[in-house]
Amino acid sequence: MLERIAIYPGTFDPFTNGHLDITERASRIFDRIVVTIARNTKKTPLFNLKERTDFIADATRHLPNVLIKSFEGLLVDFAQNENAVAIIRGLRAISDFEYEFQMALMNRRLNNDISTVFLMPNEKYTYVNSTIVREVAQFGGNVATLVTPLVAEKLKIKFEKK
Amino acid sequence: MLERIAIYPGTFDPFTNGHLDITERASRIFDRIVVTIARNTKKTPLFNLKERTDFIADATRHLPNVLIKSFEGLLVDFAQNENAVAIIRGLRAISDFEYEFQMALMNRRLNNDISTVFLMPNEKYTYVNSTIVREVAQFGGNVATLVTPLVAEKLKIKFEKK
Amino acid sequence: MLERIAIYPGTFDPFTNGHLDITERASRIFDRIVVTIARNTKKTPLFNLKERTDFIADATRHLPNVLIKSFEGLLVDFAQNENAVAIIRGLRAISDFEYEFQMALMNRRLNNDISTVFLMPNEKYTYVNSTIVREVAQFGGNVATLVTPLVAEKLKIKFEKK
Amino acid sequence: MLERIAIYPGTFDPFTNGHLDITERASRIFDRIVVTIARNTKKTPLFNLKERTDFIADATRHLPNVLIKSFEGLLVDFAQNENAVAIIRGLRAISDFEYEFQMALMNRRLNNDISTVFLMPNEKYTYVNSTIVREVAQFGGNVATLVTPLVAEKLKIKFEKK
Amino acid sequence: MLERIAIYPGTFDPFTNGHLDITERASRIFDRIVVTIARNTKKTPLFNLKERTDFIADATRHLPNVLIKSFEGLLVDFAQNENAVAIIRGLRAISDFEYEFQMALMNRRLNNDISTVFLMPNEKYTYVNSTIVREVAQFGGNVATLVTPLVAEKLKIKFEKK
Amino acid sequence: MLERIAIYPGTFDPFTNGHLDITERASRIFDRIVVTIARNTKKTPLFNLKERTDFIADATRHLPNVLIKSFEGLLVDFAQNENAVAIIRGLRAISDFEYEFQMALMNRRLNNDISTVFLMPNEKYTYVNSTIVREVAQFGGNVATLVTPLVAEKLKIKFEKK
Repeated sequence: MLERIAIYPGTFDPFTNGHLDITERASRIFDRIVVTIARNTKKTPLFNLKERTDFIADATRHLPNVLIKSFEGLLVDFAQNENAVAIIRGLRAISDFEYEFQMALMNRRLNNDISTVFLMPNEKYTYVNSTIVREVAQFGGNVATLVTPLVAEKLKIKFEKK
Repeated sequence: MLERIAIYPGTFDPFTNGHLDITERASRIFDRIVVTIARNTKKTPLFNLKERTDFIADATRHLPNVLIKSFEGLLVDFAQNENAVAIIRGLRAISDFEYEFQMALMNRRLNNDISTVFLMPNEKYTYVNSTIVREVAQFGGNVATLVTPLVAEKLKIKFEKK
Repeated sequence: MLERIAIYPGTFDPFTNGHLDITERASRIFDRIVVTIARNTKKTPLFNLKERTDFIADATRHLPNVLIKSFEGLLVDFAQNENAVAIIRGLRAISDFEYEFQMALMNRRLNNDISTVFLMPNEKYTYVNSTIVREVAQFGGNVATLVTPLVAEKLKIKFEKK
Repeated sequence: MLERIAIYPGTFDPFTNGHLDITERASRIFDRIVVTIARNTKKTPLFNLKERTDFIADATRHLPNVLIKSFEGLLVDFAQNENAVAIIRGLRAISDFEYEFQMALMNRRLNNDISTVFLMPNEKYTYVNSTIVREVAQFGGNVATLVTPLVAEKLKIKFEKK
Repeated sequence: MLERIAIYPGTFDPFTNGHLDITERASRIFDRIVVTIARNTKKTPLFNLKERTDFIADATRHLPNVLIKSFEGLLVDFAQNENAVAIIRGLRAISDFEYEFQMALMNRRLNNDISTVFLMPNEKYTYVNSTIVREVAQFGGNVATLVTPLVAEKLKIKFEKK
Repeated sequence: MLERIAIYPGTFDPFTNGHLDITERASRIFDRIVVTIARNTKKTPLFNLKERTDFIADATRHLPNVLIKSFEGLLVDFAQNENAVAIIRGLRAISDFEYEFQMALMNRRLNNDISTVFLMPNEKYTYVNSTIVREVAQFGGNVATLVTPLVAEKLKIKFEKK
C-alpha cells in the first residue's frame, strides 16, 4: 500500500480550535498530514512565521503523523513535491464555498493528479475563523474556547503591547 | 499502515458521469472504495437495485479497488461494519451544501470515528444529477455526454416502453 | 435585420404581476415574445390551460408583440421551432438560481444556438410566486397587489367553491 | 408600558431542543410568548395535536410566560387576535432564509402592524430540525441530545410500533 | 413589567431609508431603541460622528423612544451597560446572512444574556445600503428615494466639494 | 424594426475566455454589442485602457457587430447615450448574484427604460475570473485555457518584468 499524504494549507494567523479539529480528523483519514503555512499572503500577518509554526506544533503535539511546513508560489507545485494525493480544506459556511470551489477547480486544472478534499469542522467551530478571533481579542473579549491556551496568551500580549 | 476504506453512498438512479468522476478521484485517494446503493429511499426508483448495480459495475470496471454494495438503515452503522474511515460525498452546488452538511454533522454526532469527506466533480458535471438525466431522457433529449453508453441505452429502452 | 424572437416559458398557475413585469421588460428588448405555458407538469394545476391562457391574454392586452402558446416535451425543441434566439427566465432569488442554471446549462448542451436570458423583476415582486399567491388566496388573504383583477376574482371563486 | 406579546408558530412535529432554545430566548425578550402549532399542514404529522402540545408543555414548564395554542388559516389574523407585536421565527441556515423572507414579506404586506423577528438557535442546533430527528429515530439512531426525554421516548414507541 | 431596551448598532455612513424602516419597526416592538454608531471602524467614514448623529436625529424625530449613542470596543459590553435585552440587526440578503450569524454567535458566546434579533426591511430597501448610496451620489445619481432629504443634500455638497 | 443595442460593461483586466463566451452569445441575441470598459475603478488595473482595448479587439475580431468603448460615471447614463435597450452581465455563481442584483435594481431605479440582462457562461468558465487569472499567472501557472494567446503572452511579460 501507498503512503497517503495530504497537505493542509492556510494562513493560520492564528491557528484556531477549528483548524485543530480539521487537522485531527485528517490525521485519522490519511497516513501523513503536512500543515502548510502560506507565506505569500498580501496582508502582513499579526503573527510571524515562527510564531505561527510554534502555535501549530504546540496544538498538534499529540498527533504523530502531522508535519509543519511553509510554502510560497503555486500550491499544486508544493503538493506535488510533497507527493501528496490530496489538499485538505475546511468548509464551514456558504461564504467559503464558492471561493474554495474556484480554487479547487483551478488547482485541478493546474494538476489533475491532486484532489481537493473538504472536511467539515464540528458545528461549534462553524463561525470561528482567524479574523474574528483577532477582532475579539483586540477588544479584550475572551477567546479561551476558540484557540489553544498558548495562542490565547500570545494574543493577549500582542494587543496589550499595542 | 492501515488499509484506508471509504464508502460512497447514493441512490445512483442512474449512475452518472459525475458519480463516475467522484469515484475515480476517490479511488486514487483511498485504498478501497465501497460504492453503496441506498435501498431505503422514499420514492420508487426508475431502475431496480440489480440494474443500478450493473450500471456501476460496468462504469467502474477499470477501477480494481472499487466494490459495490447496498444498504438499508443508518449509514454510519453500515460504514462502521465496513471498517470505513470516511464517507465520500460529491459537492456540486450550494443547493447540495446545507443538506450535505446537516447529514454530515448528524452522522458525526452518531459516530464520531467516521468523517464525511467532500469531493468536487469536474465543472462539466456541476449541474448533472440523476433527476435531470431522467427528465431529459424522458423527453427524448440526448444524454450521451452525461452517462455511460449502457445507461444511455437502458434509459432509452425504459422510456420507449412507457 | 433579423426578427428577434424570445420565448418565456412557465407554468403560470396563475400568471402574477411578477410574470407581467418580466413580460413587459422582455417585450421592449425583443421583437416578439412567445409566452409559453408548460403542459407537462407533474402536479395537477389549479387552473386549466384555457384559464391560464385567458389570464395571460388579459394581462398582456397592451403588449402587441406578445403571443401565447403552450408546449410539451423538450423546451429547446419548441424554441427552435419558434425560431427563437432566447429563452427568458425571471430570476428572483438565490433559491431560483441553481435550478435555473442547471436547466440553462442543460438546454445549452441540448441546443447551443439558443441562449437563456435572465431578467429581474421589480424588487416588489421578488418574493411573489404562483405558489404563495395560491396559498394566501386559499386562506382568504388579499392578493390584489400581486395579480391582475381577473386572476384575483377567479382565485376567489375557485376557493369559495372548495 | 404595553405588554409585549409575540407568537412563535411552527408545526413542531416534534418540538426539538432547537425550538426550545428559541423559545427560551424569546421568553427573555418579550413579556409573553404564544407557541402556536399550525394545524393546516399538508402532510399528516407523525404526532397529533394533543401529543405535540404535551411535548411543548413538558419542555417549557420552567418558562412561566409561555402559552401554547394552535391555529388554522392566515397567521397574521391569528397574530392580530392575540394582540401580538411580533412573529418569531428561528433562522438556522441559508436554506431557511429565502422561504422565511418570502413569508415575512407576505405577512408584512397582509398586516403591516406585525413584524417578523428572527432569532438564531445555538450553533449546536444549527442543523437540527424535526424532519432529520424523525429520520434518525426511524432507523434506531440516538436522538437524546436533540430532543427532550419525553419526545425521545415517544419517538421510540412510535417507531417500534410501526 | 420590565422596560425592554434594544440597541441597533451600525456605521450609518450615511443612515438610509432602509435603516429608518428597521428603526421604526423596532420602536414598535421594544420600549426603547438605542441607535448606536460604531466608532471603531477600520475605514475613514465619509461623514463624521457629529454628521451621522444629526442624520439619525433628523430622521427619527417622530419616534419618541429612540436614543442615539456611539460606542467603541466590544458591542456586548456596550449592550450590557445599556441594560439591553437585544441587539437589532437588519437582514436584507444572503450576503448579509453569514457575517451576521458569525457575529451573532460570537456575541452570544461572549454574553449569553443578550440576544441578536433580526428584522427585515421593506423589500424596496432590500438592495439599499450605505455603500451603494455613496457610489450613486458620487456620480451624480439621484438618491432621493433612498435617504432622507437632509442626507441627500449633504451627499450632494460632499461630492461637489471633492 | 428597431436596432437592438446592448452594452456589456466590465473592468476586463484582463478579458477572459468567459467574457468572450458571453460576448459571442450576446452578439447572436442583439444587433449590436458595445463592450464597455469601466475607467472609474478604485484599484489600479494591471493593464491600462489601451492594453485592455487591444485584448478585446483581438478576441472579438470574428464578431462584426461588436464595438469597444470606455466609460466613466453612471452606467445608465452611458447606456442611454448609446441608445441601448439592455445592459449585459455574465452571471456565474451565487457570489455574483446579490451584487449584480443590487446593481441591476439600482440601475433600474435610475433609468427604468434600460433592462439588465443576465447571460450564463459555459460551465467550463464558471470559476474563471480576471482576479484568479492574474493570481495564477503571477506564480507562473498556465493560463492558456482561460484567456486568448495574446493575453497569455502579455501576462507572462508583465510578471517577468516585476
